[in-house]
Parts: sequence; structure tokens; C-alpha cells
Amino acid sequence: MKAVLAICDGLGGRPTDHDGQTCLQAADTPNLDELAERGVSGLLDPVGPGVRPGSDTSHLSIFGYDPNEFYTGRGVFEAFGIGMDVERGDVCFRTNFATVDDDLVIQDRRAGRIGEGQDELEEALQELESPEDGVEVDFKASTEHRGALVLKGDDLSGRLSDVDPHETGVKAPEAEAMDGSESANRTADIVNNLVRQSHSIMEDLSLNERRREEGKPPANIILPRGAATYPNIPSIEERYGIDGVMVGAGALYIGVARALGLEFRKAKGVTGGADSPIINKAKKAVEELENGEDFVFVHMKGADSCAHDHDDECKIRYLEKVDDVIGYFLENLDWDESHLALTGDHTTPIAYGDHTSDPVPLTINGPNIIGDDLEEYSEKAAQKGGMGRFSGDVVPVLFGFSNWLEKFGE
Amino acid sequence: MKAVLAICDGLGGRPTDHDGQTCLQAADTPNLDELAERGVSGLLDPVGPGVRPGSDTSHLSIFGYDPNEFYTGRGVFEAFGIGMDVERGDVCFRTNFATVDDDLVIQDRRAGRIGEGQDELEEALQELESPEDGVEVDFKASTEHRGALVLKGDDLSGRLSDVDPHETGVKAPEAEAMDGSESANRTADIVNNLVRQSHSIMEDLSLNERRREEGKPPANIILPRGAATYPNIPSIEERYGIDGVMVGAGALYIGVARALGLEFRKAKGVTGGADSPIINKAKKAVEELENGEDFVFVHMKGADSCAHDHDDECKIRYLEKVDDVIGYFLENLDWDESHLALTGDHTTPIAYGDHTSDPVPLTINGPNIIGDDLEEYSEKAAQKGGMGRFSGDVVPVLFGFSNWLEKFGE
Repeated sequence: MKAVLAICDGLGGRPTDHDGQTCLQAADTPNLDELAERGVSGLLDPVGPGVRPGSDTSHLSIFGYDPNEFYTGRGVFEAFGIGMDVERGDVCFRTNFATVDDDLVIQDRRAGRIGEGQDELEEALQELESPEDGVEVDFKASTEHRGALVLKGDDLSGRLSDVDPHETGVKAPEAEAMDGSESANRTADIVNNLVRQSHSIMEDLSLNERRREEGKPPANIILPRGAATYPNIPSIEERYGIDGVMVGAGALYIGVARALGLEFRKAKGVTGGADSPIINKAKKAVEELENGEDFVFVHMKGADSCAHDHDDECKIRYLEKVDDVIGYFLENLDWDESHLALTGDHTTPIAYGDHTSDPVPLTINGPNIIGDDLEEYSEKAAQKGGMGRFSGDVVPVLFGFSNWLEKFGE
Repeated sequence: MKAVLAICDGLGGRPTDHDGQTCLQAADTPNLDELAERGVSGLLDPVGPGVRPGSDTSHLSIFGYDPNEFYTGRGVFEAFGIGMDVERGDVCFRTNFATVDDDLVIQDRRAGRIGEGQDELEEALQELESPEDGVEVDFKASTEHRGALVLKGDDLSGRLSDVDPHETGVKAPEAEAMDGSESANRTADIVNNLVRQSHSIMEDLSLNERRREEGKPPANIILPRGAATYPNIPSIEERYGIDGVMVGAGALYIGVARALGLEFRKAKGVTGGADSPIINKAKKAVEELENGEDFVFVHMKGADSCAHDHDDECKIRYLEKVDDVIGYFLENLDWDESHLALTGDHTTPIAYGDHTSDPVPLTINGPNIIGDDLEEYSEKAAQKGGMGRFSGDVVPVLFGFSNWLEKFGE
């Protein structure tokens, strides 16, 4: 058996999206409809009814990991997502390169969305050193102002407030222990020391001298936020006995997949943007299955980004590209031996422009499902789907159809 | 956005109710049907499938508070419901005015459902004093034999057995620590002392001399039961960031609402009985929304009372009054900006005359829902509703459609 989980980020919508229809209803999606016709559908609450999911919590939940138990914060997934080595107990942060004045008052939270010098900054910041013995510091730059900081050592805590104040004109705050514990106080002291070090290291870099000459804000400090301890979370292989790979582009989603033990595989030319050639993800996924992988998780980001920008036409066009992706799977998977689940990680309506708690459609195809009578893939059609409504756990349901689950009890 | 939660207590029924139909099916309810036609419906398990809810636990669950975590006992809500000031850690009891002989053997658990002298009794009982320093005693009479007792102090416990034996001819039992803890033993000693004090205080009141002359049972003791510590429960505003008010009449429901931080607003002439002019609750609710409130919880009690009395005609007539309430909302809410959810807190079938675990219909109207194809509001129609079936959490689902929820994760 083979299994594919295809997630269209921000898939669901509302009647306010486009002329009284959701974008999914408005889009021309013959392949999605064929998927619904061949398969069994239902409504999915990514985390639960009345829970408004983040992308991180919803993915954990869809993979069968209760985020109330396993979610510690976004930093972990960002660090994994940009390829850092993270181990159980490490404390991870997302960081921004930012601009501060001599009193550490924030001038620009993103150093002018700096588009250069990431390598120079990353190399310089290898000098960061913990003020306390036995704690290892790792820093990696990502795109633009983004990066991640990882602390490795015994008894560190991720229960820390952000150093990023999310506004300008105020002094960069110090990280503080959110639970008053000794380990959080200790970790806060280390982080605050590293932030001051980063300012000393970065202030006079040649990159910044040049930027000042050009009238651009220097990248002269790192602001860590989203502190999170990598929890004792079993990998997908440990939990279900099945290994697999992830085909996607967004760092967060790559990060969630890597945190759960899936290896990242890059498809040709994909970007994570709405204009990404996502058909190549379908091709890559089929190639991975043909090369022996059992399970591929395909993540498609664009619909969510379009909806965050309140752009219905953009979301409709992207959903039509998702339709092409599904068309490729319909033609190229070995349907005697494969199951595919298509769903979203949450609804992102055009008017609201952010995630909502509304459920999303879910359809599964494959030889072991019992089909229903739907002929359309949409939020409304899925209300009548044969799977009814349930919360999270799409991967265990998919793996169940694939005959891969361990018995609970005897 | 604005949101209304309308709860018809004991809404659901069974085919044994009335000529092979539920009361809801038998009642003439054109407005409820229009609500279903405009909206999206589903089946709600107030607490969970196969859980037979009390009114207190079901309301907590519907508001998104897991009663397994937050329910400590009914006393808290009774005390809140009659307007007492209760704070975290206080121990609350429901009390009966009762009749005992000189050996404290119970003659009448409700002192003949005493219909007079509540003020005199309440005033006399202000003399109650804790035998232990640092514990404050508060007593308030309600209607007929009902009242509430609140103990305020450090390290008190609500894990106490009832002083009320729920039968006559036996001696009033002493409160006992249900968990053997020191704080429960201490609190039990205080309560038992207060019960003896109440007998001394009440025995010779002029009210009771008169009642004895009239051949009526004297109200000469209080019997506390339903001990409960007010738990560390976040208010609706703390939990969801939205404040609101409650329009209702029954003390328990007012109590639940106040315990969750909703202010009580009285509608003209309402009584909590089956003959209450509940249309005035709809008018009051719309008035509160127009005056700037974001959220109104409207509670309608009568259908449940009729069903407890095994009176199908009474329940059918009351449901037709609920239909008028919904008709008023359909006409008078600003439907571009409002969502309304109508459901019950449990089923109360006519033959059984008490709460059952059967699910209840739920319908939500408003601009952000995706409608289904129903044309009727009933238990049977709701089986085909577009929301499927879920447990509790109606308020977070309603607030989700209103774009009011905080994101869980990022």
C-alpha cells in the first residue's frame, strides 16, 4: 500500500468569499469533483469544533498528535524548517534581524526586510557564546530578516516571553520567565545575554557600514520570539511504524514534517508562493512513491496566502492549480494500491483574511474506502459526506485504510 | 458582529411524547422552520454521547467549559443565581428551610414549601457565626424553602456530604468529609455547627410560633446540600475576549451565567414558569445588542418544566412561544452583522419526565455560515444537518463564526 496526504493550506472559505460562494465553489475544479465522486468525504475540524487553529497546531492534530499535549510553540518548527538539527529538550526561537539605536530602541523590526547578507550575518553570529558552561548555541539565517536560534543543554526552558515587542519606538524587552521557574529564569538570562552579544557582533559589520551609507537600516540585533522546547514527541515511524517524506516549500510545514521524522524532498522550482509550479509537487510525490516510499505528505501553501491578502481571484486561481495536482494523482497513482486524502489545515475566508474555526472538507480515495454519493468537492457538499464530521487524526484514518495501524488492545 | 445564544431548556423529546411525535414535531413552529431553512443545523450532545446532563453541567459544556474540569457542584450556581457575591475558593451550599423535632428528626424537608417569612428568616440567620476565626458566613433566602449558604476563608473544602437526607423520619445527618482531607473535616465541623446554630436561631421565631398556631410546620432548621467550591474558572471575557449579558429567569441559569462573568438583565414580567411572557426576553436581548452589548445569552425554562410534569400539551404550547421568540429575532436582528444559535441544554421526554442523554437539535444563522438544505427544525430533521454531530462547545463555534476567537498556535 501507498498513501498520500495532500493539504491545501487555508482551503476552506465562506459564502462571503466571492459572489455568495466560497472560492472552492467558484473555482473550476473537475478533478476535485472526480475525487469526491470516486471517494468518501466528510467535514474535518482540524483541531476541534470552535477551535481556531494555527498552521502548526492544525498540522500536528491532522497527523494524530493532540496539540494540547505536544505543542510547545512555533520556534521548534521554524528551526527544523530551515534545516537545523534539533533534539529533544533543545529550546528553539524564531528570530528577526532588526535595527536598534544605541539604547536598543527598535527602529525597524525587520531591518528593512533586509534582502542581502544573510550568509555574512549567519557567519558572524557563530561567535555567539553562552555565558553559562554546558550550553551550546546554534544560529541559522533563513530568508530576508528571518532566522532561528537553538540552545542545547540540560534543564533549559522554553517558557519565555518574546524579546520582540512587535512594535517600533520601544526598547527591546528582555526575555522573562513566564512560569517563574528557575530553569526559565536561567534560560532567560542566557537569551538576554545573547541578544546583547548579537548587537556587539553585528553593529559594525561591513554589511551594516555599507547599508548605513546607502541610507538603509542596519541589521544590528537579533530579536528572538516564539520560544519552544522541542517536546518528547514520537516520530511518525515510532507512532505508526511507517516512514515517509514531505514535499512542500514553506519552512513551517517542512519544520512540522521534519519534527515528526519525515524527510524533506524538494520539487523542481517550487517557492511556497501563489505562483509556485505546484504540479511539480505531484510529480515529485509520485516519483518518491515509485522509488519505494510508502507515504508522502504534500503541502500546498498558496490558497492561504491569497486569502490572507483578501484576494479571491488569486485563491480561485490557486485552487484550480490544486485541481491540476489532484488530476495528476488521479492519473498517475496506482489506485489498486494507493489511498489519497485531500483536506485543508483550516479555513481562511477572504473577508476575514485569517484562519477561522470553520470545518474544512476532507475526501479520501482508494480501494478500501466505502464511497458515498457526492459528486462535488466543496464545503457544502462535504456536509453530506459519508465520513460525517470528526476532529484531526486524518493521518491515522488514512493509515487505517492502508492497513498500517497497530492494534490497540487485543 | 453580534451573537445570540438561545437555549430552550429541555428542548428535545422522543416519539413517545405525543401521538408518535416529539413535542417539537407536534408544535406549530413556522419561525423555527425558517431558522432551519436559513441556517445550518446539526445534532448536539450537550456534554457527550451517552452522558445524561444536569442543567449546570450542560450549560458549562455548551459555553465551552469541560464540566469534568470545571464542575464542582450545584451550590456555586445557586448562590450566584440568587445574587450572592461569590469569590474563588468560597464554599457554597444550596439550603432548604426544613422542619425538625427536638431530636433533629426531619418532619418536612421543605417546611411545607413555606411561602412566607423569607425576609424574617434571612435576617435572623445573619446571626450565624463560624465557630472558627477567619471564616465568614453568608446566608441568603430565595423563593419558598430555598436559600444558599456561603463560607469564605482560607483552605475550605467543598468535598462534603449533604446534611439533607432527602427523606423524612430520619435524623438530619451531619456533613462528612468525602475525601477524608483535613480541610474537608474542618469545613464539615463548621457546617455542622452552623446547622445546630440555625435550629437555635429559628426555633422560636415569631413566624414559627404563628405557623404552629396555624397547624403549619415551622421552618426551624437549614439543611445544606450540594457543597461546592467556586473553582478557578476563567470568565467568558477571560476565555474568549468577549463580554456579554444574560436574559433569563431561573436562578440556576442566572447563576451559571454570573459565574462565567455575564451580567444578568431582567426582562419585563418574566417568571421562569411555563406561563412566562418570554417574548419580552427577545425584546430585551435585541435592546441590549442595540445598546452596545456584543453577546446575549437568552435562557427559556418552561419546556423543561412541562416535561418534568409529563405534560405534553404544556410543552407544545411553550415551544410555540419559543417560536414567537425566534420570530422576533428573525425580524429584529441585524442579519448582516449577527449570528444566532438555538439549541437545548438536554432532552426531556414527556414519558420519562427527566433529562436524558439523547442529542438535541442545534441551528445557527448568520452571514458566515454555510447553509444546508433543511426546511424544518426538529430532532429528526437535524440528523441531516450540515453541522453533523458534535459535543458541547456551541459558544466557541458561535464565536468562531463571529470572528472572535484567539488563534491556538500560529
